[in-house]
Amino acid sequence: MKRHRAAIVLAAAFLGCAQTQRQEVLDVLHAQMEAWNAGSVEGYMEGYWNSPDLTFVSDGTVTKGYDVVLERYRSHYSSPVLMGKLSFTDEEVRSLSESSAIVTGQWRLARQNDEPWGRFTLLLQKKPEGWKIVYDHTSSGGE
Amino acid sequence: MKRHRAAIVLAAAFLGCAQTQRQEVLDVLHAQMEAWNAGSVEGYMEGYWNSPDLTFVSDGTVTKGYDVVLERYRSHYSSPVLMGKLSFTDEEVRSLSESSAIVTGQWRLARQNDEPWGRFTLLLQKKPEGWKIVYDHTSSGGE
Repeated sequence: MKRHRAAIVLAAAFLGCAQTQRQEVLDVLHAQMEAWNAGSVEGYMEGYWNSPDLTFVSDGTVTKGYDVVLERYRSHYSSPVLMGKLSFTDEEVRSLSESSAIVTGQWRLARQNDEPWGRFTLLLQKKPEGWKIVYDHTSSGGE
Repeated sequence: MKRHRAAIVLAAAFLGCAQTQRQEVLDVLHAQMEAWNAGSVEGYMEGYWNSPDLTFVSDGTVTKGYDVVLERYRSHYSSPVLMGKLSFTDEEVRSLSESSAIVTGQWRLARQNDEPWGRFTLLLQKKPEGWKIVYDHTSSGGE
């Protein structure tokens, strides 16, 4: 009986951890969305790992390094009209270990003249500074 | 001195494991490439996890389940001409734990009338039946 109770407590603790991880990971994405929709590319970029090893795959191209990814975002989205309103939906988190998780979901940019959208796959890792996106594969579904 | 030696032995063992994992993961991809180029969609599919939870993201769409992914491949690549010759290049393996790794790289299909290519991000996990792709995000770079 005691063993059963211990097993239940352990299972609950594990589920609690997974639940916490899931929420922490989703919080990163939600903070990014808010920063973007407040017009801050720099705030959006805080979700990414500030490292030369940050990897960003977009359709066919690979961009390496935080500074290069930031510059790419700055040049592609140089005005509030180009930034539009970003939303993430259909997010699914897979825990891979205590310190790594993958999130997949759909992104959509509502802009004056178009509405590009697509899918993303993010690898997040728990760094001393918190959960950060270390690898991003984003693809377009159309406009 | 003894402690140093033990640390070196441990480090070597760890690097050895990571190296073995990397090779086992790449072997899955190479077997897929060989099967594809021998005209076998079924052989290619052996690299994937045979599960309803297998997830395949292609540009903007999500396909779930081994049987549905297999059917999608069968209908898109119904002849040797449509299959063409597949090559994977620029593969990079990231070990996330003893039993999970991410591989990114470039794919290219050399066909009679076009040469589609793009990037892939694969999550592989060590299952009782061996390393299997459990999640695939593939995007097109152009034709």
